[in-house]
Amino acid sequence: MPVESKQWVLSGAKGTECLALNTVEIPPLGRHDILVKFRAASLNYRDIAIALGKYPRPQKTGIVPGSDGAGEVVAVGAGVTEFQQGDRVATCFFQDWVAGRPTFKRLSTALGSEVDGVFREYGVFPAHGLVAIPPSLSWREASTLSCAALTAWACLHGERPVAPGDVVLVQGTGGVSLFGLQFAIAAGAHVIATTSSEDKAKFLKSLGAEHVINYRTEEEWGRHVRQATPGQAGCDIILDVGGSSNWAQSLKAVGAGGDIYLIGFLGGTGDTSGPTLWDTRQALCNPKSISVGNRAQFEDMNKAIEAFNIKPVIDDSVFDLDHLKEAYQYLMSASHQGKVVVDISADV
Amino acid sequence: MPVESKQWVLSGAKGTECLALNTVEIPPLGRHDILVKFRAASLNYRDIAIALGKYPRPQKTGIVPGSDGAGEVVAVGAGVTEFQQGDRVATCFFQDWVAGRPTFKRLSTALGSEVDGVFREYGVFPAHGLVAIPPSLSWREASTLSCAALTAWACLHGERPVAPGDVVLVQGTGGVSLFGLQFAIAAGAHVIATTSSEDKAKFLKSLGAEHVINYRTEEEWGRHVRQATPGQAGCDIILDVGGSSNWAQSLKAVGAGGDIYLIGFLGGTGDTSGPTLWDTRQALCNPKSISVGNRAQFEDMNKAIEAFNIKPVIDDSVFDLDHLKEAYQYLMSASHQGKVVVDISADV
Amino acid sequence: MPVESKQWVLSGAKGTECLALNTVEIPPLGRHDILVKFRAASLNYRDIAIALGKYPRPQKTGIVPGSDGAGEVVAVGAGVTEFQQGDRVATCFFQDWVAGRPTFKRLSTALGSEVDGVFREYGVFPAHGLVAIPPSLSWREASTLSCAALTAWACLHGERPVAPGDVVLVQGTGGVSLFGLQFAIAAGAHVIATTSSEDKAKFLKSLGAEHVINYRTEEEWGRHVRQATPGQAGCDIILDVGGSSNWAQSLKAVGAGGDIYLIGFLGGTGDTSGPTLWDTRQALCNPKSISVGNRAQFEDMNKAIEAFNIKPVIDDSVFDLDHLKEAYQYLMSASHQGKVVVDISADV
Amino acid sequence: MPVESKQWVLSGAKGTECLALNTVEIPPLGRHDILVKFRAASLNYRDIAIALGKYPRPQKTGIVPGSDGAGEVVAVGAGVTEFQQGDRVATCFFQDWVAGRPTFKRLSTALGSEVDGVFREYGVFPAHGLVAIPPSLSWREASTLSCAALTAWACLHGERPVAPGDVVLVQGTGGVSLFGLQFAIAAGAHVIATTSSEDKAKFLKSLGAEHVINYRTEEEWGRHVRQATPGQAGCDIILDVGGSSNWAQSLKAVGAGGDIYLIGFLGGTGDTSGPTLWDTRQALCNPKSISVGNRAQFEDMNKAIEAFNIKPVIDDSVFDLDHLKEAYQYLMSASHQGKVVVDISADV
Repeated sequence: MPVESKQWVLSGAKGTECLALNTVEIPPLGRHDILVKFRAASLNYRDIAIALGKYPRPQKTGIVPGSDGAGEVVAVGAGVTEFQQGDRVATCFFQDWVAGRPTFKRLSTALGSEVDGVFREYGVFPAHGLVAIPPSLSWREASTLSCAALTAWACLHGERPVAPGDVVLVQGTGGVSLFGLQFAIAAGAHVIATTSSEDKAKFLKSLGAEHVINYRTEEEWGRHVRQATPGQAGCDIILDVGGSSNWAQSLKAVGAGGDIYLIGFLGGTGDTSGPTLWDTRQALCNPKSISVGNRAQFEDMNKAIEAFNIKPVIDDSVFDLDHLKEAYQYLMSASHQGKVVVDISADV
Repeated sequence: MPVESKQWVLSGAKGTECLALNTVEIPPLGRHDILVKFRAASLNYRDIAIALGKYPRPQKTGIVPGSDGAGEVVAVGAGVTEFQQGDRVATCFFQDWVAGRPTFKRLSTALGSEVDGVFREYGVFPAHGLVAIPPSLSWREASTLSCAALTAWACLHGERPVAPGDVVLVQGTGGVSLFGLQFAIAAGAHVIATTSSEDKAKFLKSLGAEHVINYRTEEEWGRHVRQATPGQAGCDIILDVGGSSNWAQSLKAVGAGGDIYLIGFLGGTGDTSGPTLWDTRQALCNPKSISVGNRAQFEDMNKAIEAFNIKPVIDDSVFDLDHLKEAYQYLMSASHQGKVVVDISADV
Repeated sequence: MPVESKQWVLSGAKGTECLALNTVEIPPLGRHDILVKFRAASLNYRDIAIALGKYPRPQKTGIVPGSDGAGEVVAVGAGVTEFQQGDRVATCFFQDWVAGRPTFKRLSTALGSEVDGVFREYGVFPAHGLVAIPPSLSWREASTLSCAALTAWACLHGERPVAPGDVVLVQGTGGVSLFGLQFAIAAGAHVIATTSSEDKAKFLKSLGAEHVINYRTEEEWGRHVRQATPGQAGCDIILDVGGSSNWAQSLKAVGAGGDIYLIGFLGGTGDTSGPTLWDTRQALCNPKSISVGNRAQFEDMNKAIEAFNIKPVIDDSVFDLDHLKEAYQYLMSASHQGKVVVDISADV
Repeated sequence: MPVESKQWVLSGAKGTECLALNTVEIPPLGRHDILVKFRAASLNYRDIAIALGKYPRPQKTGIVPGSDGAGEVVAVGAGVTEFQQGDRVATCFFQDWVAGRPTFKRLSTALGSEVDGVFREYGVFPAHGLVAIPPSLSWREASTLSCAALTAWACLHGERPVAPGDVVLVQGTGGVSLFGLQFAIAAGAHVIATTSSEDKAKFLKSLGAEHVINYRTEEEWGRHVRQATPGQAGCDIILDVGGSSNWAQSLKAVGAGGDIYLIGFLGGTGDTSGPTLWDTRQALCNPKSISVGNRAQFEDMNKAIEAFNIKPVIDDSVFDLDHLKEAYQYLMSASHQGKVVVDISADV
């Protein structure tokens, strides 16, 4: 049994210089605890926002950062029935949101900001804070699911689940958008995507997008999206990852009764010039807030990933745990395509 | 068999002076048609908006106005299986929206604006444009359901149905608000209501509201509503019948993940100073558009009205068909409490 | 406008000799009627049962038989909003079951037994008795959906919808089973199938079945099915088209909490030696009755057929309207693979 | 902090003589553990079946029996976010079935048979194995919910939730039946009940049953039930707690598409003379197995109990922890009406 673990700790809000690697003792396991040896983890923009003190939700000082990790069960407490040694698991974004609707208590257990996260060799988690990962995924692939993939899944399989033949709009090539595209295709939806470059357009089409619209060259891209929908009836579901100027176009693209999920913009916009509720009323659409998802949704998603053989898109540059700062900087540079992954341990 | 029918026709957009009463022949019944002898009808603000040409949706010239009517089946076509002579029925607001999600085609069959309505002695409707009415309701009571009641029902029993223990906010004493209050109470929800007078506050409490807040004396009434919710967690569902200044308070009253249904304001506001999507994002809520509801929902609602013995609130002043203009004017005067009803035929 | 139509009429219960072809006048269209020119129709075993007087539900004397037809809209009544001339439509099995749960009234409008059916050149139907067909299907393909396809769809997308990763069992190569296989594959389920020949096994695998088990050579095939499920946990959904001896095996194949849909056996079995409720209780499963499905489900199914590019399996032998008796006899001979189709009119 | 606890242990399968009271040390709390001081507990027939070795599922030797307990949180581990000292909680029947569908793993964590139960002064449970109890309930009342109440709730609010106006049949005056009656009434359903005595009939009517039918004097009571339903259409939901002879009547009472939940008969019947699947097929009904319910359902139920001010029915004879054997014998004598409760600790 391992006795100590390397871990990154964030001790301030001035960026990656506040990240420090140290070594701590592994605490004893309670009856319902599980010791996980991490094999890979992935980064999200929120990790940068947290390091810069720009995260709009609470963050604990001295936190182990990172919400998305995959690893191997090394030991389980006596009361654990769901997992056993050797099982392959991933971390739940909200450690205590197991099922049902979000509550403040449940949302106050976010990994990497309020609860110690994944950028470390070993971690102790309750069984309900972990899920089994799809057997077909590598450690790297499985390390990308906790935040971006589950957010996309929750948009598409929420109150009004995507149905075969629906039209889904995704924006850009960020994590949520790419997973959203893949999940929507699997569900039999038509996918329209926006992007700013020809290369990315090709890539989006290779993943299954039927239409790709350049939001740089087409300022009024919302209308173009609508024109690309059957009968110009507009989109059924939009995964909106932009800010207020983006929303104005989404309102042009959405169909009557369609859902617009407002995702991201962690650092906030404060921009009050965007569409008003009156505009949404005119568009007969439903703007919906989303906060990743719960553990039950994570399990459903993993079954779907396995069933449809969906492979997360991973950037070519992979880092190791000692080079976490470089991974942060690479993500900040915005030159990646797909999730930025950190290898943690190559063997058990 | 009756051969002719008196009916009101709206021939312009200058108010009640454009309403004229004439007599027409009753057309022959097709295989799937039903001849209804109307017994009572009720008015909605939309009827006024239509008479004034301020209705934001299409309206046909020469329309028979009125969407909410109750009557008796006089004759049925040979292919009708669902109804028979003597059945008590009400009209569906959208004649061709039988079930499922709204589409432009379905929403273009609104009674009293695009399809001839209920302010007449007899009307011919397809079987799928009518529903059986709750046996416990009088003709007058049954004539109030098609628009306001169904709108309230659709808000509370839509994608995210109200659950026992939820907190629901209704605003004022209009038709949707009163039905919303009654349906929410029946479902086991806590109801908070806003109003502007002590008399109406007493009335709302007599219907079951736990808290009534005066929006005149409490400018920041949204905060007061929130304070009245368990744990100050905010409302689960808000039926918002106001305009943009109202919305700002609703955003203060709503809980995380709560739904705000945007109802009414038929004449439009065009007010662009209200809350933006960014504000709704901050409040973690879901603003939802609503367009009355479909026939399947109407049937479910009627079962609930019967089961819970819910009685629609009807104003003391009841008019007869010949005095329809006076009924319009009474509704315009805003001195009513409860639905304004028109008696059409006292006997069969 | 056409004035008369050839049609088959069933005037007794002695088999195909009771079928006669005659010519009738086309009745005038009511406000909500649609005149359809049939292009193709398909047969179901129930058509044989009806011709033999062995159908367990009511049947009208002198009925036009056939429930599954596809054709072109030739004319519409003045009150029809959903369809227009030239639209491609199929018939709904239960003409008046538009949405919601089944009722006796709704189930008493079955096409080809209680309401005049599809083996004719022209027919008049209410708009709510027709649905638009998937654009990607030929007339022949579209003529196979009303009964068998919708039954399979309703099993898989009912109260407990099939989810990605579920295990679905289908039995044999009849219409419901093949559609069930195709719909389950599209939904991301694992499909296990049973059959009695190597040729059919190959065919089932070509359609996507992961495991095919020969129920002739494996008497205890229920156990074999269970062994083929992940973790031997049993099937999530079983489409059971057999009789009592079959059910005993299905009980061995089903997982805890799994659904067994009881389909078919139109002529009845009366066999009281099969599994009892106690046996189903022991298996912790839910045996469910199924009666095709409603119009709303038909529309959802058609969207899915289009989205997943599903092609109904059609037998190589296609008949024309004048040779309907031969089509019945061919179906009775049980030498077909896929739906038996009748061409009605090659042009408009 | 308490250091030791009295507890009952079951060391064999010969009845109450195998129950022994001893004292053990309270184990240390893990990060996600909660120490509960029990205030009351209640008995179920299953406790008797377990004591007699007749429980059809696995049982651990030396188990602390009892599944239904209510108590106070005395201490929480450092990782617990959902509860704090002083909270009032009840135990979940299946400790690890938090949400979603049942699995073998989840069902193998039953309290009082596989996991140490509630007949003790103190117990340590993971946070996810407890729920907050309705504030309006006393300790005794709250101690009756875990098994019988949740079973009834799960039947009525499962895949096909009870709707206002539905007809529900409950049988006798056992725990599941009484809770089922109360929950059905709250949901706006019509309730029909069966019983064997006039006294019990009066009691059932006082709780809201519209019709009570004596199954002793009316052998064919299933037909009587059907005749008491609107339009003689049969029941929508039946909570069947009887054995095979009972089922035959339930099949006569059920409506087309109705659900029959098979509950209880823990000691098994093995009776193979009851209705077959063919009979259920003829009745067009859906027999459903049920295994209590999950934690998410328990939370929903508690909200409803509070909202509708539902009070569990408790027998007049209440025992204390030292007299647990007498409580078992009293339950065995079948002379109780309402839940049999054991007081554990009157103060903290």
